[in-house]
Amino acid sequence: MLSKSQIKLITSLKQKKYRLQHGLFVVEGVKTIKELLHSSLILHKLYTTETFNIDAKDEILISEPDLNRISFLKSPNKALAVFNIPEAKKIDESNLILALDDVRDPGNLGTIIRLCDWFGIKDLVCSKETVDCFNPKVIQATMGSITRVNITYIELSSFLKENHCTKYGAFMDGENVYQSSLLEKGVLIMGNEANGISQEIESIINERVSIPRFGNIRATESLNVATATAVLLSEFKRR
Amino acid sequence: MLSKSQIKLITSLKQKKYRLQHGLFVVEGVKTIKELLHSSLILHKLYTTETFNIDAKDEILISEPDLNRISFLKSPNKALAVFNIPEAKKIDESNLILALDDVRDPGNLGTIIRLCDWFGIKDLVCSKETVDCFNPKVIQATMGSITRVNITYIELSSFLKENHCTKYGAFMDGENVYQSSLLEKGVLIMGNEANGISQEIESIINERVSIPRFGNIRATESLNVATATAVLLSEFKRR
Repeated sequence: MLSKSQIKLITSLKQKKYRLQHGLFVVEGVKTIKELLHSSLILHKLYTTETFNIDAKDEILISEPDLNRISFLKSPNKALAVFNIPEAKKIDESNLILALDDVRDPGNLGTIIRLCDWFGIKDLVCSKETVDCFNPKVIQATMGSITRVNITYIELSSFLKENHCTKYGAFMDGENVYQSSLLEKGVLIMGNEANGISQEIESIINERVSIPRFGNIRATESLNVATATAVLLSEFKRR
Repeated sequence: MLSKSQIKLITSLKQKKYRLQHGLFVVEGVKTIKELLHSSLILHKLYTTETFNIDAKDEILISEPDLNRISFLKSPNKALAVFNIPEAKKIDESNLILALDDVRDPGNLGTIIRLCDWFGIKDLVCSKETVDCFNPKVIQATMGSITRVNITYIELSSFLKENHCTKYGAFMDGENVYQSSLLEKGVLIMGNEANGISQEIESIINERVSIPRFGNIRATESLNVATATAVLLSEFKRR
């Protein structure tokens, strides 16, 4: 049975303001919840239609209509869990770091977090305007990768100015990345979906890189930020 | 002013059955429509709240409420166009061809069409079960690239059996793609989001390739099919 205050708390977590205020976020679906239960994340409360056989004080069995009331999904998948937002760890500057300058689309951020996990990027650094990684749509798109990538929201220009590694930026008119010398250590910066990297950040960048276009040069569209990130991380890691 | 039969026709085009029956598909948004008007596609009818200054017999000026009635989007963008579905051209086997074995997500297909355009893949060959490329969600995600890629729906196993080039397939346990010898000519096959490449197609494949995982090997998730396609097309083209 769900109390009114539980429903109010859970539904409030759709909004970043309340996620920050309570230090909590929502995860849905049996598979992802199980993966997160096996991570270092701390469970606040699990609301489920079937028992997970975990500590009884953490688990609340609810009916399907109750799950429908609290779920953020059109087709809820058996369970909804509330986890504590973990504290970001110190950024490890001895590896390649990925930085996002105002990426706004939750699906893109989710895909990029999965890519970090795949390509062994331990630290993802996000500008304050980048979409919140505990946004339910981001969590849904990460498929559990969020537990394996350290994500830090930070004043991006200050962070980059204080970091003494090479700063690589993805641009439409940069050097052909296939011919660039890419170091193992550094920061790769990807820009906003519509506007790319901001002027302030651009002035701090040492190396401008581009993925060459092999198709019709008349066409002006750029690659989506998530697919461009896939290609660039692959280039850094394959060497 | 919209007639009832126009509304009925347009709304029917949400479904593949009626798209095939009428040989028509819907495109929304001023930018994409303008791009398609400048392509080889043939316009059937343009419904718009502001004139495009095209032939008056092709353009119907409508009110915003009327646009809301026919639009497939939550926030319609000034115009909706109906184009004729073009006939697929003959597949050019002298270049790298991308083949999809039952990719079902419209967003993934749209992203893959954009990638083909970027990486100069002229022919995209899709199994009959792959989501229809004239699905409105696919069209929305392609950002106009659909006019520059020749897309053919075909009995995939027969096509592959008759094609004498090398067939590369993306697998979780294939050869490290960074160390594979990749030919300029051939077919690269990507599988379904949940199940990968089907057994029938697997038996026809000559070279199994994989993108190595650099992150935590405990984690079992695969890359999304669109980001994996980005990395593999980049590998084929960079050589």
